[in-house]
Order: sequence, then structure tokens, then C-alpha cells
Amino acid sequence: MNFQRIAVIGPGLLGGSLVRAIAERAPFSKEKGEGVEVRVWGRRPEVVAQLQAMGEAELASTDLAEVVAGADLVVLATPIGVMADCVRRLIDAGALGVGAVVTDVGSVKASVVAEIEPLVSASGAHFIGSHPMAGSEKNGLEYAEAALFEGAACLLTPTPLSDAGALERVDEFWQWLGAHTSRLSPEAHDRAVAMVSHLPHLVAALLVESVLGRSPEVAAFAGGGFRDSTRIASGHAEMWTEILLENREAVREALADFHRLTGESLAFFDDLKKEELHRLLADAKSRRDGFRMNGPHTPPQS
Amino acid sequence: MNFQRIAVIGPGLLGGSLVRAIAERAPFSKEKGEGVEVRVWGRRPEVVAQLQAMGEAELASTDLAEVVAGADLVVLATPIGVMADCVRRLIDAGALGVGAVVTDVGSVKASVVAEIEPLVSASGAHFIGSHPMAGSEKNGLEYAEAALFEGAACLLTPTPLSDAGALERVDEFWQWLGAHTSRLSPEAHDRAVAMVSHLPHLVAALLVESVLGRSPEVAAFAGGGFRDSTRIASGHAEMWTEILLENREAVREALADFHRLTGESLAFFDDLKKEELHRLLADAKSRRDGFRMNGPHTPPQS
Repeated sequence: MNFQRIAVIGPGLLGGSLVRAIAERAPFSKEKGEGVEVRVWGRRPEVVAQLQAMGEAELASTDLAEVVAGADLVVLATPIGVMADCVRRLIDAGALGVGAVVTDVGSVKASVVAEIEPLVSASGAHFIGSHPMAGSEKNGLEYAEAALFEGAACLLTPTPLSDAGALERVDEFWQWLGAHTSRLSPEAHDRAVAMVSHLPHLVAALLVESVLGRSPEVAAFAGGGFRDSTRIASGHAEMWTEILLENREAVREALADFHRLTGESLAFFDDLKKEELHRLLADAKSRRDGFRMNGPHTPPQS
Repeated sequence: MNFQRIAVIGPGLLGGSLVRAIAERAPFSKEKGEGVEVRVWGRRPEVVAQLQAMGEAELASTDLAEVVAGADLVVLATPIGVMADCVRRLIDAGALGVGAVVTDVGSVKASVVAEIEPLVSASGAHFIGSHPMAGSEKNGLEYAEAALFEGAACLLTPTPLSDAGALERVDEFWQWLGAHTSRLSPEAHDRAVAMVSHLPHLVAALLVESVLGRSPEVAAFAGGGFRDSTRIASGHAEMWTEILLENREAVREALADFHRLTGESLAFFDDLKKEELHRLLADAKSRRDGFRMNGPHTPPQS
């Protein structure tokens, strides 16, 4: 891992976990000339004070230019909607060095890459989109943990304009943190995550509303199946609204397909189509049995 | 717990776990006159041999009358579709004693109770429907465990014809095994489980088919959210086909409601209804955050 000074922009669950993971793997010592210097920017003074108290970053500040100055890697870990604005501010402040590498942790890529890549390129730095698929329904710095990326999938989304060296270095960075990296175009990424992440989130929320919204009293009879199939509905509502709308075309398509399939299955009950119902359940069982995740990066939680 | 000889009919996950749980809690000793005698019936000789090798039941046999003779509690743990036939066979064999108590572990109740209650009553014994909400996507004797019922919800479904003493004794039996019991009419039970158990199962299967059935290659990018929200789709396809069709009216109603809600949410993406989408996610989060299961009876599994 060949970055020397890493600036993390936004100290939420992912940003905070990055700070911890880097500090744990390569403790910084100015005297010995060892380790990786990690700096972190937060918008709110009280969160910056919390970061300072944690003591894992060399610098925690609300001053974006100060945090990014001299960094060879900048990781955008803010909400997706403010990433481009952050980049504009740090370019305007002259804080982004020529040859520096910028990446992000956003869960939608096509719109983000299309907006940020040209800005960063024009300033002589390199942008590579990243999506570490880690995290849980818990949000915020207080849940940050150094091991969050271990065993997680991390999707890199280079474009034909990406710098090959920067792509390699970002890939190495995530592998150094324990993630399994893959590469996909930003558009293929957005279609894939609409299916494996955004649709399941929406379905979990619809299931909760359809069951507990309609008949709160049945909660007393719910067991492990309901618990697990709705766990992700506890995710941060603002963050997920933003993610789903940022990726709305791919999500709409995945949801429409799911809705069509759900409608077809209604007919199994109207017309007592035992064979068709059995085929649906047997196919789903066989596909789910064959599913193996890359790693145990999100421990199931109640 | 005041049963002395318990006959378990059907050694699957639930029946096998019952045998283990009873043997562990009240080890039987003829010499000392201690404990509860547990007997178990299996249809297939190889499973009976397996039960004999386990050594936890006093008697394991393919002979229904032999197993039930002298039992003061008979627990039907076969698939729902063959329960009534089992009861007819043991009544015909004269094996069911006057005053004996019969219960079951079936996950659908109205149809089962309506068929079995009059048969059992006519023979001078008492039937009380039970539904211990334990188990997982794993099936069969090899997954049986004594602790399966600890902390699980167990729904008892008495009718106006139920014997009050038998109801109390069945209630005590499940509590003795560690379950939290509640009482509901068979019809209210079926509506409740359609929502908290049968609909989630169907939705998990539809989600797997909609995602992996359509685009198997995206499995590589799936994380903990997809894993947990689809876990129950690995359940036994034949058993679930039977359960869903046995309870088809209530399942159809729950599924139709879910389908309608899913259709409404499609419009959030067509018309960019940010506020409505946010309200759905925030309501679902708040309801899911408020959900607490009775106990940790189904450990999440990958």
C-alpha cells in the first residue's frame, strides 16, 4: 500500500471505520518515519472533537483545505449528494495536489463518476470510483470499526478515461484493508447494486409496512424469518432515500420486475397452481442454497 | 409438567427436537420411577434406526399403535397433510386412551383443527392445536436440538369446544420446554402467520428469483443485506408449498396487499416522489426499530 497521507472526507460509519482501519494497520510515527498519516474532515465541530478524542487521526478538522493539503489519497465518505461540492471546494482552495488520487465510498456510481471525474482530471489529479460493500443498518461514527472492510466486496468502477496507475493503487488500498475487489463499469455497477442491495432494501421496507403497518399486533408472533428478512429496513431513511433516487432508473427496473413476479405468484393462489408454486419455491431454494457471500463482513444482527 | 408418557409422531426437525428436549429435561428411569417416557414414531425404518441409535427415546418404532399406547400426550409432528390420517389410524387401532391429550406442531391451524378436533373428541380424548414458531431453513432429524423451543413463541389455538384442563396442560408443556405461549383462535392464528411467516417466505423466494433468476452474475456483489433478507428462501420447497396452499386465503390476502403496496412504490420512481419514498422508509425504519422478538430462538445463519 503506497499512500503516505490519506484524507478521509466525512466521518460517518464508513469514514470513521477507514480512519480506524488505517491507524490500526499502519500506526503513524513522525519521529520513526513510519506508518500512514490519516487526516479526517468533519462538517460539525462536535464530531471533529469526538474524532480528536478518539486520537486515531493525525488531524481532525472542519477545514477542508487543511485536511486535504499534501494528501496523496483523498477518500470521499460524505453523502453522495454533497461529494461533487466537496471536490469543487477543495479544488478552489488549491488543496488537491497534482497526481493525487481521489476515490469515494458511494453506493451509486454512474452519476457520481460522471460529475466528479472531469473535475478531478482538470485539476491534474485522478479519480477512481469505489464502492466498499460494507456497513449495516447502523450508521454514524459510534459504530465505526477497524475490521469493517475485512472480507467485504469492494467494487471499483473505472472508465475509459481512468489512469491505470491510480486504478492499481486504489485497488491495492482496498485489498490492504481486507476487501475483495472487482471492477465494473459505473453503469453495470449501478444495475448490479440495484438488484442485490437497493431492491432488497425497498422490499424489506415494503414488507414491514405491509405487515406491521397494517396489523401491528402480529409483531408478537413474528420469529427469526421475519426478523432477518426485514433487518435492513432499519437503515437510515434519509441516506436510503438519496441512494434509491440517485440510482432511480436501475432501481425502478428491478422493482418493476419484482412487482411483475409478485403479481404472477398471486395467480398461484387464485387458481391453486400447486405445481407452479412449488417450482417457484424449489428454484428459489436451489439458487439461494448455491449463494455464498465473499466474506462474513456484515454480522447478522437483531 | 404433568405428562408421563409422550408419543411424538414424526421425527423431523420439530419432532426430533421434541424428543431431545424432553429427554434432556426429564431423563427417564424406569427403576427410579423418574422422568418422562418419550416414544417416537417414524414412517421409514432407516429413520427409526437413526432414532434408536440416538438413544434418547424409550421406544422408536414404525408401529403407530405401539408408540401411542398408554401415552397421555400425543404430539403430531408430521407434515400437515397427513396429520388427520395419522389420527384416524391410531383411533382405529384403539391406541388413543380416554382422556389422553393430542396436540400438533403444524403451522396452519383452522383447517387442521376443524378436521382433527371432532375425530379426537369422538374417541374420548382432547385435541388442542399448537404452533411452536421454531425451526429454520434447515430440515430433518440431523438438525434437531434440545434448545429449539427455548425462547420461541408458541401459539395455542383453542376453540369453544376445547377442554379447559387439556388446554392448561398443553400450555404448561410448551412453557416447560422454554416457549412463550399465547392463545388465538385458529382463524386469527392463520391470518397472523400469513403475515409474519408465510408472506415473508414467499417474498424471500420472489426476491431470489427476481434477482438471481434474472441475473445470476450479480450474486458476486451481494452482501449481508441480500443474505439475510433471502435466508428463509432456503426452506424446504415441498413443505412450504403445502403450508402456503393450506393457508391460501390468508396468504393470498397478505400477498395482494404487499403487491398493491409494491405497485404504489413504483410511482415514487416514475414521478420522483422523494417525500413519499422517504416517508415509506422512515415509517418502516421506525416500525422495524420497535420490533423485538420474544427470544433468540432462530439464530441467524448464512
